[in-house]
Amino acid sequence: MSFILVADIGGTNARFGLVEIAGACATPPDFTAKHQHSLRCADYPSLDQMVHAYAEVAGIALPDFACFAIAGPIHNGRVRMTNLDWEFGIDELRDQLGMRALDVINDFAALAYATPHLKGDMLKPLVTGETDAEAPMLILGPGTGFGMAALVPCGDRWKIVPTEGGHTNFAPGNEREIAILQNLLKKQDHVSVETLICGKGLVRIYQALAEIDGVTVQNYEPADVAGKGQSGEDPQCREALELFCAMLGSAIGDRALCLGAQGGVYIGGGIAPKLADFIDGSDLVKRYQHKGPMSDYVGRIPLNIIMHDKSALIGTAAWLVDNTAELSA
Amino acid sequence: MSFILVADIGGTNARFGLVEIAGACATPPDFTAKHQHSLRCADYPSLDQMVHAYAEVAGIALPDFACFAIAGPIHNGRVRMTNLDWEFGIDELRDQLGMRALDVINDFAALAYATPHLKGDMLKPLVTGETDAEAPMLILGPGTGFGMAALVPCGDRWKIVPTEGGHTNFAPGNEREIAILQNLLKKQDHVSVETLICGKGLVRIYQALAEIDGVTVQNYEPADVAGKGQSGEDPQCREALELFCAMLGSAIGDRALCLGAQGGVYIGGGIAPKLADFIDGSDLVKRYQHKGPMSDYVGRIPLNIIMHDKSALIGTAAWLVDNTAELSA
Repeated sequence: MSFILVADIGGTNARFGLVEIAGACATPPDFTAKHQHSLRCADYPSLDQMVHAYAEVAGIALPDFACFAIAGPIHNGRVRMTNLDWEFGIDELRDQLGMRALDVINDFAALAYATPHLKGDMLKPLVTGETDAEAPMLILGPGTGFGMAALVPCGDRWKIVPTEGGHTNFAPGNEREIAILQNLLKKQDHVSVETLICGKGLVRIYQALAEIDGVTVQNYEPADVAGKGQSGEDPQCREALELFCAMLGSAIGDRALCLGAQGGVYIGGGIAPKLADFIDGSDLVKRYQHKGPMSDYVGRIPLNIIMHDKSALIGTAAWLVDNTAELSA
Repeated sequence: MSFILVADIGGTNARFGLVEIAGACATPPDFTAKHQHSLRCADYPSLDQMVHAYAEVAGIALPDFACFAIAGPIHNGRVRMTNLDWEFGIDELRDQLGMRALDVINDFAALAYATPHLKGDMLKPLVTGETDAEAPMLILGPGTGFGMAALVPCGDRWKIVPTEGGHTNFAPGNEREIAILQNLLKKQDHVSVETLICGKGLVRIYQALAEIDGVTVQNYEPADVAGKGQSGEDPQCREALELFCAMLGSAIGDRALCLGAQGGVYIGGGIAPKLADFIDGSDLVKRYQHKGPMSDYVGRIPLNIIMHDKSALIGTAAWLVDNTAELSA
């Protein structure tokens, strides 16, 4: 049996697995990843050595084909991992690993690539509607930062368009959000979507609200604010979480407009699945669709949360099959 | 001699012309449009009848090939002109006009298509830098509204991605812009980029500043605010124009981030060329590049103003040659 090595490499952890080529190329495809193991990136000086460590832990020989999803910019065949000291050429890594084909794609692009293969409770629909097969598909959302990628239909393929859309100026929609922006502008001279809509951003919203309301700012981690917000035991945590969801909805709607993303919008990243129940009672969808004369336009674009935490592995396998002549033939 | 009929059809006026096929297909191409005439859209009940009226005024027979740039959404081969009562199918119009090929493309996409053919003073460079041939090219800017389109490289062609990026929430970058947003949020419940960054938007900024500063709001048209702002004779007009340029720069930078527009950014629309000298002394470029950790990323993307007011005619001819087998063969 032949396999594809797949991996989802974040700033902290990397998850590896093996997908059977016969399954990945079947109709319908089966992208189940066997021999899954998660490794801590900081334990290894390079990706090359982490891949070898995975092979040892899993007790497997490295296969001929691999595709990695990576949280970092890819430019002219070179990858730089923002939070690690890793920088490498993709072809160089392929040769070091002795592989026939190795692709490295943006982690949000991998999520986008997975979406056609996500079934049942792997997706949580927030808005149902019609998609336009000629229009871009957009995938974005909060995690350690605010990730974003688009897939643009290009003949019978998809073209991945990586973006830096998390770094646009934050656009407040009401007086309370304006007060938060004013609070943050005293601390830093550029307040972006990612400043507020990511794990640390949830804490920043909480801190701003506590300062505005004149209550003691507690030394909370993102999980504290999320927990005390969901339980309602801390009023500023509660409001921070409500505003986080509302701001997220507004930011997603803005990005759907900027991309003309009538191919569908998917919320990826680690945070939204954990808040899925809270999101149901929040203003996320209302704010997603609150776009003046374009409210109907956005309101017709389907919106889903990607609930399955191994979607990037599915996406990398799907990408490699579609883009490797030896496999798709 | 055979010709392509080209047109740039706005909400108020339409400019028509004829481009010689031999010139359009030459290397380098010559897209000079002869027999140019401008007609008022409101004088005609349909585009079909306006095209025939042009042929009569110009004293020409309608050619076999045409491409029109249009300020309105195009969906599934149907066009709706937002400010007119016109709605039509593109193939139906082609048959009514007895043509072999007729394409209708978004007016900002036509501008984007023209950019490789704009020379000398047809472009005004604001930021020089390197472009990435694999990345999207972005064209956007204020006129009657705030238009925006992207061209995405797709094999050896460009794919046009129309967007509604003018309708995203307005993102203020400082206290004065926040005060304007607060003023506008009292008048309307959604304040978009287009609310402030277009002809009428310039007047809205002026009105907000006059109200905030407690001076009498004059009944100015956009040209009044622009004129009195450039001369400096009215302090609120002056500041409105300064803020207009700063907000425009910030909005363009945000959209370059959202699209990953490393293929280059071009400012189109009717307003920027008229303000070109004022823009030189404004904060437009500073705000374009003021994007926190992504300031270098945006700072490397070339930014130009399209100065040539007939660029859309060049773009439609270039599009038709590239996308019509009979012509490009």
